[in-house]
Amino acid sequence: MKIAVLGTGPVGQQVSAKLAELSHEVTIGTQDVGAAMARTEPDTFGNPPFPQWREQHPGIAVGTLAEAAASAELVVNATNGAASIDALEMAGEQNLAGKVLIDIANPLDFSQDMPPSLLVSNTDSLGEQIQRRFPDTKVVKALNTVNAYLMVDPKQLAGGDHTMFVSGNDVDAKTQVVTLLESFGWSDVIDLGDISTARGTEMYLSLWVRIYTLGSPMFNLKIVR
Amino acid sequence: MKIAVLGTGPVGQQVSAKLAELSHEVTIGTQDVGAAMARTEPDTFGNPPFPQWREQHPGIAVGTLAEAAASAELVVNATNGAASIDALEMAGEQNLAGKVLIDIANPLDFSQDMPPSLLVSNTDSLGEQIQRRFPDTKVVKALNTVNAYLMVDPKQLAGGDHTMFVSGNDVDAKTQVVTLLESFGWSDVIDLGDISTARGTEMYLSLWVRIYTLGSPMFNLKIVR
Repeated sequence: MKIAVLGTGPVGQQVSAKLAELSHEVTIGTQDVGAAMARTEPDTFGNPPFPQWREQHPGIAVGTLAEAAASAELVVNATNGAASIDALEMAGEQNLAGKVLIDIANPLDFSQDMPPSLLVSNTDSLGEQIQRRFPDTKVVKALNTVNAYLMVDPKQLAGGDHTMFVSGNDVDAKTQVVTLLESFGWSDVIDLGDISTARGTEMYLSLWVRIYTLGSPMFNLKIVR
Repeated sequence: MKIAVLGTGPVGQQVSAKLAELSHEVTIGTQDVGAAMARTEPDTFGNPPFPQWREQHPGIAVGTLAEAAASAELVVNATNGAASIDALEMAGEQNLAGKVLIDIANPLDFSQDMPPSLLVSNTDSLGEQIQRRFPDTKVVKALNTVNAYLMVDPKQLAGGDHTMFVSGNDVDAKTQVVTLLESFGWSDVIDLGDISTARGTEMYLSLWVRIYTLGSPMFNLKIVR
C-alpha cells in the first residue's frame, strides 16, 4: 500500500521503517525537505540526525507534507501534537480527503512544568480536533499510548501480551488499521468506539509520563479482564 | 487499627467490610446518620439500601463524618469526588490533622455528556486539592483506578496479577498504605511519587470509563515492564 508518514521524528522514523520492511511504498513527509536533509545534530532525544537515518533507509522516499499525502492511500500523523493541525493543513485538505489517517500524535504541552500536561483534554481531544477540521478524512487514533520502538515491535515486551486501542468514527477504517497493527505484532487491540474515545487514550498520557519518569519508556499497559 | 471510612456508597461499604474482616476497628462516617439509616431504596447502582448493609455488618460503627474522623488513626475518603472537600470540611480539619488519609475519590462530572468527564484535571487533581486544603493531613491517593469490588479483593481477577498505584508527599504514609493494600491482596503497587502524580491516576479514569462502557467493571490495567 502507498503510505505517507508525516513527521521525521523518532515516531515517524520507526513507523516508516517498519512499514517499508513490510513492503509498503512509504514516503516520509516533512515541512521543509531541505532543512530536514541539512540537519547535522542529534534530535532532542539524542537520535542521529535525519540524513543519517535517511541513508540507512534508501527505499523510503522523502517529500513535503503535501507531496507525501497526495500520493498516499493511507496517511500517518506522526507530527508533534502541538503542531499537528498546522502540519495537516500544509499536507492539504484535498490530499487527505477520503483517506484513512492514523493519528499517533499526543497534544503534549512542554511549556509548563515537567512532566508535560496536555494542550487539550477532558472534554475534547486532538483526535477529535483533527476529525472536525478534516471531516472528509477517516481519523483513527492509535499507537499514541506507547513509545516509538514498542509501536512497531510490541513483541519485544512480554511477547506482545499487552494492549493497544483504536478510536474512530468509521468502522471500516478501524478494521483496516487493526489489520495494520496486527502486521506490526499487536494481538490485543481494543476498539474503544468513536473518535471522542481518543480523550481516554490521550489523557492516559498523564499516567504514562509519570511511569516513564520512574525508569524506562519500554512499558505498556495490559487491560486484564 | 482504628479506621474511619467516610462515605456510605459502594466504595465505603466494600472498604469498611474488608477492613473489619481484617480485624480493624471501623467506623463508617456519613453526613447525616439519621438520613442514611432511614434509606429504604436501592442506590443508583442497584445496591441494597444502607440499613440492610448495616444489619449484615453489626461490627462496624456508624457515626457522623466528624465522629468517625475524630476517633480514627487513619481515614479513608470514599465520598463522592464532587463533594469530597465539603465532606472533609465537615469531618473537621482538626480531626484529620496529623493523620494518613487514603483518598479513593475521583472528581467525576456527571452533569455533562456520558461517560463522565473530570471536574479537575491536567494541571491539578482532587488529591492535590485535598492536600492543599488540609496541609497537616498526609494524603495518599490510592485505589481510585478500580471498581469497589476489585479494590478489596484484587485476587478475584487473574490471581491479582495487575497493578495499583500510590501517590503522596509523605513516604512513611505511603509505606503504611502499601502495607494495607498488601493486606487486601495487592502485590504489584507502583509508587508514582508526590501527590501531583494523582493527576495521572485520576486522568486514567477517562480511559477507564470508556473500557467500562464496553462491558464489565471487573477489569484493571497491568503495567507490563
